[in-house]
Amino acid sequence: MAQGVPENIPEDGLTTRQRRNRPLTMVHTGDGKGKSTAAFGLTLRGWNQGWNIGVFQFVKSAKWRLGEQSAFEALDELGAQSPKGGRVEWHKMGSGWSWSRKAGTEEDHAAAAVEGWAEIKRRIAAEEHDLYVLDEFTYPINWGWIDVDDVVATLANRPGRQHVVMTGRRADPKLIELADLVTEMTKVKHPMDAGQKGQRGIEW
Amino acid sequence: MAQGVPENIPEDGLTTRQRRNRPLTMVHTGDGKGKSTAAFGLTLRGWNQGWNIGVFQFVKSAKWRLGEQSAFEALDELGAQSPKGGRVEWHKMGSGWSWSRKAGTEEDHAAAAVEGWAEIKRRIAAEEHDLYVLDEFTYPINWGWIDVDDVVATLANRPGRQHVVMTGRRADPKLIELADLVTEMTKVKHPMDAGQKGQRGIEW
Repeated sequence: MAQGVPENIPEDGLTTRQRRNRPLTMVHTGDGKGKSTAAFGLTLRGWNQGWNIGVFQFVKSAKWRLGEQSAFEALDELGAQSPKGGRVEWHKMGSGWSWSRKAGTEEDHAAAAVEGWAEIKRRIAAEEHDLYVLDEFTYPINWGWIDVDDVVATLANRPGRQHVVMTGRRADPKLIELADLVTEMTKVKHPMDAGQKGQRGIEW
Repeated sequence: MAQGVPENIPEDGLTTRQRRNRPLTMVHTGDGKGKSTAAFGLTLRGWNQGWNIGVFQFVKSAKWRLGEQSAFEALDELGAQSPKGGRVEWHKMGSGWSWSRKAGTEEDHAAAAVEGWAEIKRRIAAEEHDLYVLDEFTYPINWGWIDVDDVVATLANRPGRQHVVMTGRRADPKLIELADLVTEMTKVKHPMDAGQKGQRGIEW
């Protein structure tokens, strides 16, 4: 719902416009479906605003999210060729980050996750993107590979107007505390409960 | 999560493949953000499978979701011109449905909603789409404009392999009962609580 009047007006000395234009930190968590899909839906909106978007997938398999990746590659090409739309860079940890010279194995996830976060920090400092999608980012944090305090400090002090959305189950309470917008996706019913496996177009 | 083994194998006489290919009925409900955005994320996956997708927005304002609409129009053009990607038809109730000859006013929402549902029924019977996105569809049902029993009967008996995703708050228990996959988006924190209004690229 885009419309609506805020219930509380904070005494933060900001005008409505300043507050409106504040960069957002968003978390999609919970055990239900839709955490990443909603983040990619948000990416569509940003693309239409002409934003430069960086997607970083902290997932083991290079095969995940191929559907979305492929659609955003097409949108990125359009954004490059015409005044319509923005840019979308899509990076995934799967078999080595795309910016990395290392061929990468799917084994050393911890090192790959640390490398991914270092690159994101560098980009945030350089204000490279308007929106960062940190997909499945809660896992390397929860497994102790990436320091949550470093993430919080980096995001809390980031320069300019860079939006960040993070997805994954069991988001650390410090991320929840930091975030402006937190949605929990709760599973009410899932086809797997009725013996149905994932299918093309729905799960990938 | 695409992977995983179902916990229960039902005694429905179907093979895993038959069960896997069963068309899905999905509901995104709850008071949190991400219900529609996740449905549009799903639309991306379908597009990448070459699906023919129909989006039907049961919203009052013709201005909502312009970001997503614009991105999907671009993807639809790509799908029309090349072997890559599918088609996405985007219809909204706002100022009269696009297939309708009536200029439409924003006043008679009830009549417009009924007309939208009649058209969707027609398309379902004709197996026109691989995926139907019925956005904000719970509202005209909850307001008594569209008969929930008719919706349930139509969806339960639909022919072929047509997926359906419905979004909106307070989904009718009969829709929940019918659905294969139900996710509730719960608001944990929202920027409006801190006095921040919606902003470009995030809310639209």
